[in-house]
Amino acid sequence: AMPSAAGHADGEGSPIFGVTIPENYRQWEMIAPSQEDGSFNELRAILGNAISVKAYREGTLPFPDGAILVKLAWKRVPSPEFGGAFVPGHATTVQIMVKDSKRYAFTGGWGFGRFVDGQPVDRAQHETCFGCHQANVKEHDFVFTRLAP
Amino acid sequence: AMPSAAGHADGEGSPIFGVTIPENYRQWEMIAPSQEDGSFNELRAILGNAISVKAYREGTLPFPDGAILVKLAWKRVPSPEFGGAFVPGHATTVQIMVKDSKRYAFTGGWGFGRFVDGQPVDRAQHETCFGCHQANVKEHDFVFTRLAP
Ligand code: HEC
Ligand code: HEC
Repeated sequence: AMPSAAGHADGEGSPIFGVTIPENYRQWEMIAPSQEDGSFNELRAILGNAISVKAYREGTLPFPDGAILVKLAWKRVPSPEFGGAFVPGHATTVQIMVKDSKRYAFTGGWGFGRFVDGQPVDRAQHETCFGCHQANVKEHDFVFTRLAP
Repeated sequence: AMPSAAGHADGEGSPIFGVTIPENYRQWEMIAPSQEDGSFNELRAILGNAISVKAYREGTLPFPDGAILVKLAWKRVPSPEFGGAFVPGHATTVQIMVKDSKRYAFTGGWGFGRFVDGQPVDRAQHETCFGCHQANVKEHDFVFTRLAP
């Protein structure tokens, strides 16, 4: 296993960044849900570890080292039980951003990882992460998601 | 303050049920996000206390006494930073279900509370809760939401 930015040595790390899936992330506090239209057609939820949640609540930018954000995504499917409601279908990707301002100095201090069924996707996909976050949310430390009230 | 089914005496309880907003629920584990179309046009997230999360993970039905589910809802607004993505706008309602099989024996063991800006809505609205949950998800202990993978 690669050394892990997320302090967790199990599982394979992402190309370029060596980010792995953090332990117990499913128990982390929810930052916000989100949804994407079009061909994605997904429901999503962004969870954060304690360091990131503290930074959100206190409005600290840039996020401090050790902050980790995890975005869970599922296909958006109609509720079988109630018309007009949509619920998570099968899980598609788990995406991770880990703040380590030294190690990831060339990508805004963030290391990126995208996983499908627990396995990191290829290098080419990981070359796209920072570009998009930089182009759109540079002024918010490269993070789209705001803390939902 | 009314005596609270959620073990928390602050704030006004809901009509009929006396359910109050539990402390620290925003830190609870996320069960699932959801979305509703039409005039609601909302993003939602259902959070659960430790008793409810354990029941979900172990597949325990009916939910044991002490289980609490909280549904947060926000207007669904387009991300100002990325076309095709939708994010939480202003908060609309906080809705709560508290399991107490004795106290709420006549409504499937669940007490209901709907809050807007921290205040419970009127009695008439609270008369609708159980009817809808009973009509649609009686076989799942009156709970729509499944644990998202
Ligand atoms: C084409 C644009 C684009 C690319 C490429 C992209 N992202 Fe994002 N990312 C977004 C948008 C938009 C959001 C916020 C909306 C949402 O919730 O999906 C987001 C949100 C995230 C979040 C939640 C934190 C935040 O910034 O809101 C993580 C984690 C994340 N992306 C990781 C990745 C990883 C890892 C990659 C590459 C493997 C990647 N992203 C590539 C557009 C992109
Ligand atoms: C017309 C139907 C309807 C009525 C009336 C209704 N609900 Fe629900 N409720 C739903 C549906 C559908 C869901 C699941 C979809 C979603 O996430 O919004 C849900 C979900 C919930 C949840 C999350 C747990 C679960 O069952 O999934 C809570 C808590 C809840 N409702 C509370 C209330 C309260 C409190 C009231 C009354 C003040 C109420 N509901 C009235 C349809 C209804």
